[in-house]
Order: sequence, then C-alpha cells, then structure tokens
Amino acid sequence: MLTNENLHYLDNAATTIPSPEVVAAVSKSLAENWANPSSLYTPGLENAQLLNRCRATVAKTLGCTAAEVYFTGCGSESNNIALLGAAHTRQNWGRRIVVSGFEHPSVQLPLRRLAEEGFEVIEVPPEKDGHLDVEKMAGYVNKGTILVACMLVNNELGTRVDTEKLAKLVKTANPRTAVHIDAVQGWMRVPFRLDNIDSLAVSGHKIHAPKGVGALFLRKGYSQGMKLPLLGGGQEKGVRPGTENIAYAVGLAAAAQQMQAGFAQRTEHLAALNRRLRQGLAAIPGITINSPDDAVSEVLNLSENCIRSQTMLNYLAQRQVYVSSGSACSKGEASHTLTAMGCSALTIDTALRVSFCGENTPQDVDEFLNGLESGIKTLSHIRGH
Amino acid sequence: MLTNENLHYLDNAATTIPSPEVVAAVSKSLAENWANPSSLYTPGLENAQLLNRCRATVAKTLGCTAAEVYFTGCGSESNNIALLGAAHTRQNWGRRIVVSGFEHPSVQLPLRRLAEEGFEVIEVPPEKDGHLDVEKMAGYVNKGTILVACMLVNNELGTRVDTEKLAKLVKTANPRTAVHIDAVQGWMRVPFRLDNIDSLAVSGHKIHAPKGVGALFLRKGYSQGMKLPLLGGGQEKGVRPGTENIAYAVGLAAAAQQMQAGFAQRTEHLAALNRRLRQGLAAIPGITINSPDDAVSEVLNLSENCIRSQTMLNYLAQRQVYVSSGSACSKGEASHTLTAMGCSALTIDTALRVSFCGENTPQDVDEFLNGLESGIKTLSHIRGH
Repeated sequence: MLTNENLHYLDNAATTIPSPEVVAAVSKSLAENWANPSSLYTPGLENAQLLNRCRATVAKTLGCTAAEVYFTGCGSESNNIALLGAAHTRQNWGRRIVVSGFEHPSVQLPLRRLAEEGFEVIEVPPEKDGHLDVEKMAGYVNKGTILVACMLVNNELGTRVDTEKLAKLVKTANPRTAVHIDAVQGWMRVPFRLDNIDSLAVSGHKIHAPKGVGALFLRKGYSQGMKLPLLGGGQEKGVRPGTENIAYAVGLAAAAQQMQAGFAQRTEHLAALNRRLRQGLAAIPGITINSPDDAVSEVLNLSENCIRSQTMLNYLAQRQVYVSSGSACSKGEASHTLTAMGCSALTIDTALRVSFCGENTPQDVDEFLNGLESGIKTLSHIRGH
Repeated sequence: MLTNENLHYLDNAATTIPSPEVVAAVSKSLAENWANPSSLYTPGLENAQLLNRCRATVAKTLGCTAAEVYFTGCGSESNNIALLGAAHTRQNWGRRIVVSGFEHPSVQLPLRRLAEEGFEVIEVPPEKDGHLDVEKMAGYVNKGTILVACMLVNNELGTRVDTEKLAKLVKTANPRTAVHIDAVQGWMRVPFRLDNIDSLAVSGHKIHAPKGVGALFLRKGYSQGMKLPLLGGGQEKGVRPGTENIAYAVGLAAAAQQMQAGFAQRTEHLAALNRRLRQGLAAIPGITINSPDDAVSEVLNLSENCIRSQTMLNYLAQRQVYVSSGSACSKGEASHTLTAMGCSALTIDTALRVSFCGENTPQDVDEFLNGLESGIKTLSHIRGH
C-alpha cells in the first residue's frame, strides 16, 4: 500500500492513511494560513473566506449549503453536539429518544447519560441478520419523542441502514421529532440523501483526512436557540468554540474532493475486492459471515469459529496484515454489535473485521486469506497440544 | 517576520504563526503516524506510545506527570471540560462558583450557563488598575463553594494574576473547592506553579503550534468519577472522546519544547521590546496605558483616546502592522475587560492591544509607533473636516 508494498492495511474502518495530497495541503495551509479567522485585518478575513470555501466543498458532497456545515474536532464531537443539543433544547415538550442498538459509543454513551438524567431512551437492536428494522424504530415515535438517532453505515458490519426511509417515517409520525444520523462510516462510501434529516455527523480520518477534524450538518435554522454542550468565543456560529483549525478544514475539504472525484471508480474497485474476499472465505471451512449480504463493500465481518480474535489478529499482524476484531475504540472488548444481534459466544469471540479503502489491492485480500488459512492451521494445531 | 520582512504581526495573543519546525514535525507525523492509537497491532501501539511521549514533553513544561496531561481540541474545550466537569460532579454538596470578571468567553459563558441552571456564580471584577484582587476572590469561598476559576494571564491586558496565592487561599478556606486556571495566555510566557490547582487549560496556537489542539492538566485522581460534557470511545482516559490527533500532539510537544528551550532568552528580548514600546508611547500625547505596569511583556493594552479602534486598526493594517482592539473572539465588540475595569467610553472605544512573540523585532515596534502617530495625525485631520 502506498509507499510500503509489504503493508496490507485492512482496518480502514478504524482509520485511514492520510492521502499524500491531503498531507501536502495541510502542511501548506499550516505555514500560510496562520491568521486568526476572527481577526478583522486582511489575513484574518482571507482565512475566514478560506474556511467558507472549505465548508462549501464539504457541503457539496453532503448535498447541503455551506452555511449548514460546521467544522468540529472529530466525529465523536459532532455526535455529542447534535444529540445533547437536540435533547436539551426539546426537554420542555418530550422525553423519549429512539436509537438503534448498534451505535458508536459517541452516540450510545451520551444517550445513556440522558437516560440517567430522566430521558426515556429506547434502544432498538439490529436483527439477527445484521439489518436494522427502521419500521420498528419509527414505530416507537409518539408525540413525546424528541429525537431519533441512527447510523448510516454500521462500523462493525457495514450494514447500510435505510436512513431515508427512517427519517421519512419519523417525520410522518411526528414532524417535531429531530432526526440525527451518524454518517462517519457512510460518508464517501455510499450515496445518501438529507431529506427529513436535521443533523448528520461526519469525520475526516475515515476518508484519508487527518485525525482531529469532523463536520456537522445542521439543517438551516436548526441551530437557532439550540442548547449546546460547549460554549466560548462564538466560532462556527456558536456551535463549536475554539479558534478554527483552518489547516485541517483545508485537509478535510481536499480529502472530500478527492474521494468525490474517485467515487464511481472506487465503488467498482471495492465491490471487486469484496467479491474476492467472500469467494476466498467460502473456500475455508467453518467461516461465518456476520455482515449482511448487502453490506457496503468496504466492511466485511466474519467469524472463523476456532481461534480467539486477538490471537488471530496477532498472527496476521506478524505478516503486516492488519485487521481488527471490531471497533478500534473497544480495544478488544466483546463486540456490542454482535452481542446485540444475539450471536453465539464463539461467533463473538472469533470475530474479525476486514475493512477496505480505495488503495487496497487484490494482493491485500489474498495476503489476508492466506494468513487466515495458515493461522487457523497453525494456531489450532498449537491449541490441540 | 519570518519569511516576510514587511509583515509586522503584533497580534500574537490572538494567535501565533506556527514555527517552521512545528510545521515540519506535524507534516512528518501526518504521513507516518497514520495508525489508530487504539488499534492493538504494532503501528497502533507505537502511536499510543508516541502520544504518551508527547504527553510527557508537555507535562515537563507544566510541572506535572505525563498521566496528568490530556490532549483536547483547543483551549476553549479544555476550559469547558474542566469547568462543567467540576461543577456537575460537585452539585450534590454546593452551588457557589467564584470567577474573575475578566475571563475568556470559554470560561465566562459555561459559568453563565451554570448560573441559569441554578448555580450561584460570583464574578469578581478586576480593579481599576487592571490587577485582580485574589484575596477578595478567595473571600467569597464558603463551605458551599465548589469551584474557583481564574486566568493566569489576562488576554487583553497581560495582567499576571497571582494564581499561586489564590489557589492557596481557596484551599485554606475550603479544601474541597476545585481550583481551575485558564493558562492559555500564560503558558510559556510566565513561570507558574501547580500547587493547590486541580485543573489547568493550555492551547497550542498561542505558542506557535497549530490551531486545533489544546491540553488539560487534571491533578492525579481528579478525573475519577468526573461527569464529563462529551462522551465516546474512552480516548484520553474518557476525558475527551475522538480518535487522537497524533500529528497535532506531536506539533504541540515540538512547540512546547522549542518555547521551553528559548524561555530565558525570549523573556529578556520581550522585556526590551515592551520597554521600547512604552518609551515610544510616552512620547505620543494623549495615550493611556491600560495594562498594569507589571503586566507580562507580551501584551500591552493602550488607548489613543482619539480615533476609534477599528478605524485605527484598518489604517495600521494597510502598513501590514497588525494589532487588535482586544480579544479576537470578540470581533470588534467593546472589550468586556476594560468595561469591567470601569474605563471610560472613550478609553474603551479607542483601545488597541499590541501582543508580541519571540520573533518580533525592534523594527516591528517602530513600525507600529510610526503607524500610530501617523494614523492619529491623518485620521484626526480627516475627522476634523
């Protein structure tokens, strides 16, 4: 991959390698765009304009206006701002929040905190096949439901949730209910529409931009009167305080533009890699595929039902084949997504997640398959003694 | 300055120009340290170790242990986390919060939010001479006082608050009261001690690191059980969610190291620049110095008592002399610090803040003085018609 042909990085859902073009753009911006965008002299005003051009570039890929895009420090922060903001602004007329049961911790934990504060949080688990029943979710929406939150693409399985349908059903049931989408794993992987959606979170480091930058879509007018979790100098129209990180906004825009330009070609390339992986796995006995058949091509979750995930990860890592057992944040703990799906202990304990980016090659897939097969033989032999 | 000798950037309290060494370190790190520090394979583990080395470098300049340093997205976020965390964790035994009246909005506004929630927030204004009476502040500490917050160095005046004395008086009055210090403008400008202080916020972009990174000191054990404003994947020991921005942590550490190495020499250089500026101003009739005599050398606040700040700023900016009318965040609004000091409307309306960094030269001072004098003549002539 890139400069190291022995590297087989297949954990792109954890993070991606910044593209050389993005690194160059960030470096240039760090050196040149040094003025504070809030300063009223020319270099400051130019940086404020530059920020807005970056906003417009990101907005174009989301399908909204530049004024609806807010830069944040990361996808987790985007989720926190949107969720806590939505709930605390609406608590005067309702207490119910509906959320899927396979969300990222930056959605799950703020909502559990709200539950402790007295909100009624209903978690709707995914089905056994890894799909999410959006009709079931929308069925919980009543006149006191202030917020519905859901992922666009699940980070562990690659499930593409029908957020368009969910949002429409929610607004039909209650037009005042806020709809928040965590699109961190979906942005630049699948096309999606913002209709009926009030807020949507994305992150830079999943699309070859740096770690430490995210963006938040807030529908026009939505942030007015919003009770925000962090307060300060009024940057990002009061949504997120702190002197603006211009260089990373430039990096995020550069990455978004690059990803957008390569969208169609990459989609085809990744579909081929996914087919190659699924075919290879079909030839290895005992493998279970945990991802739904129609998951995005970027993510495939499987269980080899033999060797514990961490042992297998270590074996593969010796060959510079890097995959994970689930979300990086969970640091090797049992997957809450597979648990929510009702998978067996063996399936959960031997789960592996392979996740692609556009730079991956068929050779990366083959190295994983060879490593996996060899690992099963070698490690089960050792275990047998 | 740096590569442009016609640039006279004298607004370093708003933001600083990243040093070339910092830019190089960030660029290298962006390209090389791509793995997620939460990933359990070698490149991830190496990045987690790298983060901890950066933490140790920052810790050394603060006088604490590496484990007491948490990376954040900015100084404003550091302040919000510490203040909201301290208050919400202690609300079961007290409601009083004491704070100075010349804080940055990222301290002032979260506390005003807490006041709306029912906390009793006492703001102690600065004295007419720009000093803060820390004995008066500590006098408000009773057995129900959960938090005292104060700046180390005021961003508009350069006032060095005796935070060591304040913290000691507070802990003597009530050992359970949390003490938070906003050291964003003080770090690497003045020496300070952490005794009796529970939390302290710093920022990268005031010390020639990028915009978009800060750090937060939390005394050992202090974060245990802390109710934090943002939740997610458990990064930074749960204090701040989001995949770690390794490249900017590297940049922050590089800047801190560079600033630390040049501390003594810079202190002397800046004292000379400040003297030159004060001497020059003494020769211009009608000037008022708003900063206290013993303010830090980096900041000098003055009023020319003739031309409105924004008009003068525009005049100076045409000569590439960049100063401000106060905090950049306030975007030209009347200074809340000078207002709190009880300054006259004319003093407030014609205020200018000059703020130095180690790269400034005597020529920068002279260009400002010449510009100011020429501006007063030219603009008051125009006004006379």
